[in-house]
Amino acid sequence: MSEQILKGLRDRDPRGIARAISLVEENDPLADEILASLDDSLVDQAMVLGITGPPGAGKSTLTDRIISKYRSQGKRVGVIAVDPSSPLSGGAILGDRIRMMGHALDQDVVVRSMATRGRLGGLCAAAGAAVRILAGSGCSPIIIETVGVGQSEMDIIRLADITALVLAPGLGDDIQAMKAGLLEVADLLIVNKADCAGAETLAMDMESIAREGSGKEKDSAKVCMTVASEGKGIDDLLAAIETVDASHRESGERKARREKAYDLEVLDWAIEMIKPSIIKKIEEGGLDRKGDPRMQAVKLLEKE
Amino acid sequence: MSEQILKGLRDRDPRGIARAISLVEENDPLADEILASLDDSLVDQAMVLGITGPPGAGKSTLTDRIISKYRSQGKRVGVIAVDPSSPLSGGAILGDRIRMMGHALDQDVVVRSMATRGRLGGLCAAAGAAVRILAGSGCSPIIIETVGVGQSEMDIIRLADITALVLAPGLGDDIQAMKAGLLEVADLLIVNKADCAGAETLAMDMESIAREGSGKEKDSAKVCMTVASEGKGIDDLLAAIETVDASHRESGERKARREKAYDLEVLDWAIEMIKPSIIKKIEEGGLDRKGDPRMQAVKLLEKE
Repeated sequence: MSEQILKGLRDRDPRGIARAISLVEENDPLADEILASLDDSLVDQAMVLGITGPPGAGKSTLTDRIISKYRSQGKRVGVIAVDPSSPLSGGAILGDRIRMMGHALDQDVVVRSMATRGRLGGLCAAAGAAVRILAGSGCSPIIIETVGVGQSEMDIIRLADITALVLAPGLGDDIQAMKAGLLEVADLLIVNKADCAGAETLAMDMESIAREGSGKEKDSAKVCMTVASEGKGIDDLLAAIETVDASHRESGERKARREKAYDLEVLDWAIEMIKPSIIKKIEEGGLDRKGDPRMQAVKLLEKE
Repeated sequence: MSEQILKGLRDRDPRGIARAISLVEENDPLADEILASLDDSLVDQAMVLGITGPPGAGKSTLTDRIISKYRSQGKRVGVIAVDPSSPLSGGAILGDRIRMMGHALDQDVVVRSMATRGRLGGLCAAAGAAVRILAGSGCSPIIIETVGVGQSEMDIIRLADITALVLAPGLGDDIQAMKAGLLEVADLLIVNKADCAGAETLAMDMESIAREGSGKEKDSAKVCMTVASEGKGIDDLLAAIETVDASHRESGERKARREKAYDLEVLDWAIEMIKPSIIKKIEEGGLDRKGDPRMQAVKLLEKE
């Protein structure tokens, strides 16, 4: 069993890779062996690209086009699709999205979906492990696609070397409200649906907000215009990604982000490992559920 | 200082309440005293109403109308607005939303915003404490408004006695994809913007999905039609909320949810209390950041 999985991973068989990711996610005893078997230099070298943005901006279509372009360059692409829907009813949705991508039969596009609800494990820990496994089996870039809302979902973006924020004109007020938070994490701004009314205004808005704030290099506040549904602007986007990547490697920014991400993953794993013992204590401790939960937590930890 | 805050809380002064919530959120030494000072019977009796739904469904406008209606019944209303934007740039957005609510001068509407990004503390722990403090200072209902995306954001909804899911016609595919996950947690379905094209179809869709699944009582799959911007349908909605609340009190569902929420809060607090020591170890431990983070976490915990 163990040998078979490790062989699948070595052979870069998508099913073997999927199985390996699942085992690590489930905290299986084989997890350590799987992670230890990976080629660290591949993990170090792979480019991890975060694609985030509000619902309706066209992230999936854009991701699809980016995958196709990297494939045409002969690159093996990993995708981690972080899905806010539930694991119970979300299967179909995730499936649809992947089918929509049209790369189902391509052995060199390895797609991994991660539901964020109903998880036992930490999302960061699991996604971090998936990035390592995908990188270790020869994928680069590895694209993390996530809707730009939610605490854990945003933490995931910190695993990326480069983050692109996708927006589109006409998404409404609530969505505009999310932008400010998202802008802070973005190295590249993408105005998708650039053929729609309001795209130019949005691009100018984004440019000025990005120029004002964030203490980031001015150069990184680049806005790319795309029409993902027609494949327009993808070449420019990939060139812009390459420029940012080169600049981050040169400046040490890439190394600094990797170190932060590493520490974040260690923290997330440590919490995951501690959590079951706390849950066990809560279940066995017969909480009287009187008074405030904070005090109960103090009492619980004192029992150690 | 301590006396002054407790007095503000006893006097139900909104600023005193806000200060108390902040201190508990910051894990201030006064947190225990503040939480212990609350009247448990008020906390037990208060109704906690979750309002969730995708961006663009009109949650804020609807919440505004619900607040007005409860105010006209002489009730003191607490609101916890969970905002996915960042604490850095999000201040203005949260402020706008609150101002939009038009209850800024009403001492009996106590609004608390919680940003979900950049938090040190657990969102569930903090929101749970805010619910207790609001309830303890005479608020009922307490409305938790949150965009229905994100792991931590969904956990918060478990703090509610009753959850209403707000949808609107014409929100697009990505947003439809979120529905399935949200439907599971909803006791009430609200089709807002019910005067727009597609509202009837959406309501029928929702009714049939709700009827099929979830193992919940059939009665709770009620769909309310509202036009929040014109105040339409709010009376019916409040009546429906009351019916669900009565049924949950009768059946023991309310008690069961409270117990689960309590345990969730204890877990979240316990993790919050353990986290700093892990972070300290990571910072002081001089991680070599070689190999996989999971193994590093194991090593870190072994050092205890």
